[in-house]
Amino acid sequence: AQLALEKDYESHRDYETRYRVVMESTRDPLVLVDASSGRITDMNSAAAQVLGAEADALVGSLFGHEFNGLKRGELLDQLMGAATSDTNSSVTAHTKRTAKELKIQARLFRASGDKTLLCRLEGAGAQEVIAEELS
Amino acid sequence: AQLALEKDYESHRDYETRYRVVMESTRDPLVLVDASSGRITDMNSAAAQVLGAEADALVGSLFGHEFNGLKRGELLDQLMGAATSDTNSSVTAHTKRTAKELKIQARLFRASGDKTLLCRLEGAGAQEVIAEELS
Repeated sequence: AQLALEKDYESHRDYETRYRVVMESTRDPLVLVDASSGRITDMNSAAAQVLGAEADALVGSLFGHEFNGLKRGELLDQLMGAATSDTNSSVTAHTKRTAKELKIQARLFRASGDKTLLCRLEGAGAQEVIAEELS
Repeated sequence: AQLALEKDYESHRDYETRYRVVMESTRDPLVLVDASSGRITDMNSAAAQVLGAEADALVGSLFGHEFNGLKRGELLDQLMGAATSDTNSSVTAHTKRTAKELKIQARLFRASGDKTLLCRLEGAGAQEVIAEELS
């Protein structure tokens, strides 16, 4: 049983590596947000660039703080609403540091009992992709 | 030690979930290829769509078989060359099933001793993103 657990553990170690490589290889800005606290648990460098700060500095802080004109908890409520709606809805918000209008697509998932929102930032990021592709 | 291993194991289980959610949330077509055999180990649905087949049917088959005009092992050699070069080079190839010209960006990483290439398919996929964003 111990050997099986270790072997399984080894294969799960792979997923951590895969997760990190995929996060950094995608051009989509992605942010993981804890659904109960609203705090950022992880993000890729594309997202850090869109929000205008280092990823290390943003992880652990409230995702809602990165946007203007929102009451405390308002963004999280909107994201939860978008993630749990049947239609493929998104939330529009304005970044504080970089003054960009973003559309945020949210997907809710559960890992080890904790609910997490995976947020994909569109708008500024997508336009950068377009500019890059057309150049 | 057992408890610590289990707790750690639990946190690695999370990464498998995170990996799968991120793969399906990104709009970039991504394919994981075993660097020694050239066989597809995983891919997201965006990549399956670009290649013109179901992901389940493609996993386990040779990545090079999905492209025209290549000798056996040629694509893998080119991808390894691109992944290990200092410049940010890509490989151009033509899909067999969908007759698209793609630029493939490759990144080499190691997990549990096995070398894996993460391939991002650009061209058809990127143009679809542009069309979607501008519509």
